Amino acid sequence: MKLWSRKVYADTAASTPLDPRVLTVLTQTAKNIFGNPSSIHRAGLEAGKILDTSREKIAGILGVSPEEIVFTSGGTEANNLAIRGAFEAYYKKTGKPAHIIVSAIEHKSVLEAAENCKIFGGRVTVLPVDQNGHTNLTELKNSFTEDTVLVSVGYVNNEVGTVVDLKQISKIIRDYRKKQGTAFPYFHTDACQAPRFFSLKAESLGIDMMTINGSKIYGPKGVGCLYLNKDVKINPIQMGGGQEFGLRSGTQNVAGISAFSTALEICEQERDAQVKNVSTIRDYLVEEIKKQISGAIFYGSTESTNRAPNNINVGFDGVMAEDLVIGLDVLGIEASTGSACSSKSKPESHVLKALGFTSPFSSIRLSLGKDTNKKEANIIIEALKKETTRLRRK
Amino acid sequence: MKLWSRKVYADTAASTPLDPRVLTVLTQTAKNIFGNPSSIHRAGLEAGKILDTSREKIAGILGVSPEEIVFTSGGTEANNLAIRGAFEAYYKKTGKPAHIIVSAIEHKSVLEAAENCKIFGGRVTVLPVDQNGHTNLTELKNSFTEDTVLVSVGYVNNEVGTVVDLKQISKIIRDYRKKQGTAFPYFHTDACQAPRFFSLKAESLGIDMMTINGSKIYGPKGVGCLYLNKDVKINPIQMGGGQEFGLRSGTQNVAGISAFSTALEICEQERDAQVKNVSTIRDYLVEEIKKQISGAIFYGSTESTNRAPNNINVGFDGVMAEDLVIGLDVLGIEASTGSACSSKSKPESHVLKALGFTSPFSSIRLSLGKDTNKKEANIIIEALKKETTRLRRK
Repeated sequence: MKLWSRKVYADTAASTPLDPRVLTVLTQTAKNIFGNPSSIHRAGLEAGKILDTSREKIAGILGVSPEEIVFTSGGTEANNLAIRGAFEAYYKKTGKPAHIIVSAIEHKSVLEAAENCKIFGGRVTVLPVDQNGHTNLTELKNSFTEDTVLVSVGYVNNEVGTVVDLKQISKIIRDYRKKQGTAFPYFHTDACQAPRFFSLKAESLGIDMMTINGSKIYGPKGVGCLYLNKDVKINPIQMGGGQEFGLRSGTQNVAGISAFSTALEICEQERDAQVKNVSTIRDYLVEEIKKQISGAIFYGSTESTNRAPNNINVGFDGVMAEDLVIGLDVLGIEASTGSACSSKSKPESHVLKALGFTSPFSSIRLSLGKDTNKKEANIIIEALKKETTRLRRK
Repeated sequence: MKLWSRKVYADTAASTPLDPRVLTVLTQTAKNIFGNPSSIHRAGLEAGKILDTSREKIAGILGVSPEEIVFTSGGTEANNLAIRGAFEAYYKKTGKPAHIIVSAIEHKSVLEAAENCKIFGGRVTVLPVDQNGHTNLTELKNSFTEDTVLVSVGYVNNEVGTVVDLKQISKIIRDYRKKQGTAFPYFHTDACQAPRFFSLKAESLGIDMMTINGSKIYGPKGVGCLYLNKDVKINPIQMGGGQEFGLRSGTQNVAGISAFSTALEICEQERDAQVKNVSTIRDYLVEEIKKQISGAIFYGSTESTNRAPNNINVGFDGVMAEDLVIGLDVLGIEASTGSACSSKSKPESHVLKALGFTSPFSSIRLSLGKDTNKKEANIIIEALKKETTRLRRK
């Protein structure tokens, strides 16, 4: 049986249902733990203990210290905290605006947070990528300046599933820092699409900051965290009571955080099986689409080691992607055009554009769930055949 | 029967348990609604509909348009958004830092957010208050300058329960704006402690922006909103996909928002009864403490029309407040010293200091719940007698 009462949900990169185990934690914690974790009485201490346990759990998964985990309201906030926080800390210290480097296919929360720093004189370099979404490393090296405070390159792209070799980028950044004898630039990665399939060990990834959130990993919406290496000094962007080691004020969402840590723990436990199962269905789908439907164009890397196992990004010649998504929805299949996280009326994908594609028809993203099976894959293929034929006839 | 399994919980100004009806909404929504509200398929539209309904419900309670409600991760974020958002919008437009006016007894999230604007050259005026916590209006009038972008004065103080006459402050601000022919300064109020007992009708309060959150109104933690009059132009502080009318990016916490709107609706429905019931117990407690315990000093307004019905702030000569809170906790009574929202090791209350009091012993805050009854009040009095006697003997 499926977790949800629909025919086929193929939009897990936009949002996932709650794992039943996560739902139980959320419900029980929301019901029983109500103290403010900053209070010194029992209700407060109880809430504080849940926070501590959740933080330790996540720190363990990342192989870092609990003090290096800062809970936020989600991935967007964590990305903003990393970027704006680094920019503001530099401004506070030097009285000058800093320079930020991002890749062109980052999530809007990275791109817009960097862009916003321009209000205060910030400078932003947007690095080009190749047609698979890999950052141009020569350009990266050439972009460093004395005031470069941060480089942000995502771990797994949300639209085309490209998996970035963070270690390679990290080496370039660390070599530069060593040569210059400076702590900058920090290296941040948005890892929101990664936990289901890829290791989050901070040290071996070589990152200084990492964003994770709950809503793409069968966890709750409205919760996430930023990992920060203890040597990273950023300014908070949400000021107040000094919670989260002074880096993120506001009473913590105890129930949500507890559920989020459970979701991440489940990802860690089930990862190997997930990679195998989901890849198998994804490969089957790709092969059958190629065989059965004419004019299919696949975007993103074709090497499965460089690609998230749940992601297919495909366009059909002569078929408008948005019409196809709506047509599929009528047939009970939920997919998306590009990123759902952007506004509903977004005309084109900034990711495909950066990859060098400018089809007037654009593409749809199928992102598979942990229980998407072959039967569902066949339903998707039948629906794609039916709808591409219908829409081409129009 | 009580909502929670403790003897007496008297710290509702720090955090409230979930109302059982709110818990049901939270649980059911988290279980059944999992789409990303920005997605265009059914799962997304379903989530979007829950958001719309919640927004309309809250707008109705405030007497405003749904488009004037921006959901946030809580009160701290909403306060930061109002203050930093106004400051950044001004900087973006003029290239110059703005001036902000706050009252001295605001929540740390207001004070610190204003303080942080100094990084970029911002100027902050902290208005003095009288011994009841009322803002000095002459100083307010004298503080306006051409670049004053915002005045932030809280509706109900979280430590001493002072209820501010917002209308009176609004008139001063509006008169100034009219005279100068300018849209500035905006008038923002932190109303996190208000919904259980006071009207939230924006127009009659005369405010341009208002912060509300879930965790003090028997709703969920990690959810809140900022009301913004449609004529108010601020910059977002969390950038990305452009959710919440471009003012607060990030996938919305649909289940939390739905539960929050239910909690606010219940406040609205039960308000009159709550004011009556809670005031009665509060007055009984104050009278009995005065009668039965020597050396009690009460802080904040003694006129009940100027004070939140759930708030008692009292110190005992010769008794350290923190020792008393711990002693009460051992006896099963949960109270606090000042605000729980601040760090655990806070040495003194900035609120009492601003009111002109500098007792070395400080005070405790008892904040009553919706079902605190006379029997519980008597337990509190007995415990206070026992503990003040014990601590004075030490």
